[in-house]
Amino acid sequence: MDVKAYAAFEAGAKLEEYHYELPALEDEQVDIKVEYCGICHSDLSMLNNEWGMTQYPFVPGHEIVGEVIAKGKAVRHLNVGDKVGLGWMSGSCMHCHECMDGSHHLCSTLEQTIVGRHGGFADHVRAHWSWAIPIPAHMDISKVGPLLCGGITVFNPIVLSGVKPTDKVGVIGIGGLGHMALKFLKFWGCEVFAFSSNPSKKDKILEMGASKVINSRNPDDLESIKGKLDFILNTTNVTLDWDSYLSTLAPKGKLHTVGAVLEPMQIPAFSLIMGEKSVGGSPLGSPALTRTMLDFCVRHEIYPTVEEFPMSEVNQALQHLEEGKARYRIVLKN
Amino acid sequence: MDVKAYAAFEAGAKLEEYHYELPALEDEQVDIKVEYCGICHSDLSMLNNEWGMTQYPFVPGHEIVGEVIAKGKAVRHLNVGDKVGLGWMSGSCMHCHECMDGSHHLCSTLEQTIVGRHGGFADHVRAHWSWAIPIPAHMDISKVGPLLCGGITVFNPIVLSGVKPTDKVGVIGIGGLGHMALKFLKFWGCEVFAFSSNPSKKDKILEMGASKVINSRNPDDLESIKGKLDFILNTTNVTLDWDSYLSTLAPKGKLHTVGAVLEPMQIPAFSLIMGEKSVGGSPLGSPALTRTMLDFCVRHEIYPTVEEFPMSEVNQALQHLEEGKARYRIVLKN
Repeated sequence: MDVKAYAAFEAGAKLEEYHYELPALEDEQVDIKVEYCGICHSDLSMLNNEWGMTQYPFVPGHEIVGEVIAKGKAVRHLNVGDKVGLGWMSGSCMHCHECMDGSHHLCSTLEQTIVGRHGGFADHVRAHWSWAIPIPAHMDISKVGPLLCGGITVFNPIVLSGVKPTDKVGVIGIGGLGHMALKFLKFWGCEVFAFSSNPSKKDKILEMGASKVINSRNPDDLESIKGKLDFILNTTNVTLDWDSYLSTLAPKGKLHTVGAVLEPMQIPAFSLIMGEKSVGGSPLGSPALTRTMLDFCVRHEIYPTVEEFPMSEVNQALQHLEEGKARYRIVLKN
Repeated sequence: MDVKAYAAFEAGAKLEEYHYELPALEDEQVDIKVEYCGICHSDLSMLNNEWGMTQYPFVPGHEIVGEVIAKGKAVRHLNVGDKVGLGWMSGSCMHCHECMDGSHHLCSTLEQTIVGRHGGFADHVRAHWSWAIPIPAHMDISKVGPLLCGGITVFNPIVLSGVKPTDKVGVIGIGGLGHMALKFLKFWGCEVFAFSSNPSKKDKILEMGASKVINSRNPDDLESIKGKLDFILNTTNVTLDWDSYLSTLAPKGKLHTVGAVLEPMQIPAFSLIMGEKSVGGSPLGSPALTRTMLDFCVRHEIYPTVEEFPMSEVNQALQHLEEGKARYRIVLKN
């Protein structure tokens, strides 16, 4: 099949129209006609080869929503015409311990949608059936894309860390990921503290579900919640004063990062020991949990806040994101 | 009551016989006639005022086993003549969230047996009833002392981290704490890997319950367990190459420290994120869990490996510990 895509031919280059040929469909694969595709910061990181693993021509895009147009003969639960979503992962081995245990996202031989293959800034994309997540009926598919990557990235830690509706929780960084965390945690029943250093966002942040906005640059603000939080989710990838955040945790509290801070985190053992605290991290989430997240979104009408661009204006959209202007997530429409 | 104790009159000094007077017993307190008292590394740290909180004259000793000889009128479940143990904590407020939730060891106004009051290198010691832990019948009380501090310190993380009998676990540092961890984990049903850099201890370590000894200075040894362990307990207080240990963890694995390393731990976020790993810490454990631990010890005949000195030879015993010769825990006998 001929695929029309948008590709960069070298690091940091503008995307150009690019055609490539998909080989014959394998038994466990599906082909998806892309209707919408979100833009994630990691599309930019990959475009600029920041992680040293980009192959060019490079087709970004891993927050895909579309329609199954073909399926291999071993695909039983999906049918042509079904709406599905596809995120960062597009395949896993299905037989290792992690896959057999329901944690396909921790499979050591994961296929990643935009690593060594072409992504969703295109009219079609291919995936193993396990990562083509069925979209529940009646969802507004124009806004679902960002849930498949950014959404599950912040939903997984809430489940993994055993966050309870009675918990006081904090979210560091209210951007593409953080704003979705606020929405999830509001409907999770929690008292939600948003850490932000941008006062202009305050009203919007409260509207999205935060109970209170904490100015992370104000020591008095941090002091006011000392020893109070049960869980803090860090969505930023900058080095922070981790010990200050640990001090805002209640005994048994957990600090969890999904932001891949490059410098090692400086964690005083004493701060962990005295309050039985811990620091953890996680990548995205499993296909089963992604389905559970979508069901939760349907029940509570949770959607990311998105701005829509036509797929043909992908370069303008990328620039909008790069300039930090996205409020809060961008979706491309085919 | 007149108490005969052994006290240091300044940092690092030899202990001398010292008498002090206990005021009238309060309603919720008990007086304990000390029969045995273990020596813990933290007795040495306090003796040398390493943590800046020692008051002199200083009476060490917080791994106490003895007999209740008097009780306040609000003490209902203990009777004169009962054998009890007393560890690092000797009182907690009983009404804060942590106390009411069963985590008395996380109470922010803890009374600590050798901080601002006198410990168990003495003929008598006093405590709030909640921390006078009943010793199950038929236990060999000559060996129980070290369980009350070192023992619960390594038992608590096993419970807290949800270690399962099917887990592969590692213990870093096979000394006073680590050797008790090996014994617990053996009877917990786990496959136990002992990290040690002292080859002379190998046979003894295997005998105490390790399935395998890993030479932590040998990269091949570390490589052989890469990605395999579900839980690692660090009992040392030296800075280690934490990322190497994280690499020996399986997905979802936990690294837990009870050793209060002074330098901040260098934890790469990426190492946590990719495998859903976490790093935690904890201090001692609750009174309820200490009772549970003692029951577990009775059922499996678990005791620390101890060397006994008469209380009158406390200075020789302290020197033996300071020189790193203790195998593996010292108990003083009155």
